[in-house]
Amino acid sequence: MKNKMNHEAFLQQTIALAVKNTKIGGGPFAAIICHNDKIIASSANAVTLNLDPTAHAEVLAIRSACQTLQDFQLNDCVLYSSCEPCPMCLGAIYWARLKAVYFACNREDAAIAGFDDSFIYDEVPKDPENRRIMMRQISLDSALHPFSAWLAHENRRLY
Amino acid sequence: MKNKMNHEAFLQQTIALAVKNTKIGGGPFAAIICHNDKIIASSANAVTLNLDPTAHAEVLAIRSACQTLQDFQLNDCVLYSSCEPCPMCLGAIYWARLKAVYFACNREDAAIAGFDDSFIYDEVPKDPENRRIMMRQISLDSALHPFSAWLAHENRRLY
Repeated sequence: MKNKMNHEAFLQQTIALAVKNTKIGGGPFAAIICHNDKIIASSANAVTLNLDPTAHAEVLAIRSACQTLQDFQLNDCVLYSSCEPCPMCLGAIYWARLKAVYFACNREDAAIAGFDDSFIYDEVPKDPENRRIMMRQISLDSALHPFSAWLAHENRRLY
Repeated sequence: MKNKMNHEAFLQQTIALAVKNTKIGGGPFAAIICHNDKIIASSANAVTLNLDPTAHAEVLAIRSACQTLQDFQLNDCVLYSSCEPCPMCLGAIYWARLKAVYFACNREDAAIAGFDDSFIYDEVPKDPENRRIMMRQISLDSALHPFSAWLAHENRRLY
């Protein structure tokens, strides 16, 4: 019960931050990352403010938490987001290997407010050639050279 | 024919950058963004170097191109990637609204080299509660407040 209350309290804080962000011209999204129930990162959407389409709240919070912990993974951390993470943020969550994610509203709510989250979720599972953005693989003899160079590198750091 | 040669030449350059990146301890991935057939951004994976799990080549190239054009969208730009973009980068490509994407190797090649791209592609279409990372929506009365605040904001800037 205590845990559920914690999750709700962190989500309420995230929602308040998202509301506040709209007042300064930012998008209506925010995220918080906790480590041992302590907030170590807290960010709001800054796409238009930073001229950076990747500056979603979750991405910024993950980057900030990694700087705090001086690690590129967040295995013991929990992310709270005012809205269900979009596929970009979901990918970032997997690469950061977060422990758990809690969110308040979902991709359909975001679609009603005019955001593409749901559309992008529909695009991801498609074969590249069937997507709405033109995507094409071009076969080249050198295509695997980066991986050969990587596997030959003794001190490579897997992530 | 000229166009196809251009695409191949840009991809070759991307592959060479990815190979070079492994020598300095970076991941075996690189990306280039062109605007009117001119390179405006060129980046290599910096996850372990920057301690940033979102620092994939495509994300860095998109952020860099946006700074160059001073815009949060890249409608007229083409992205070249040494490898098929992962779901995080694919999401970033949609949010940046790139015109087209060309890549050399694919998610299966990345999996053989030890990277999670293919695994994450399998996770995205699942319902949040069935994913390998615990994800849960918590219903709160305030969940839609950020969107109400956003829609009430006259000068909101859609992205």
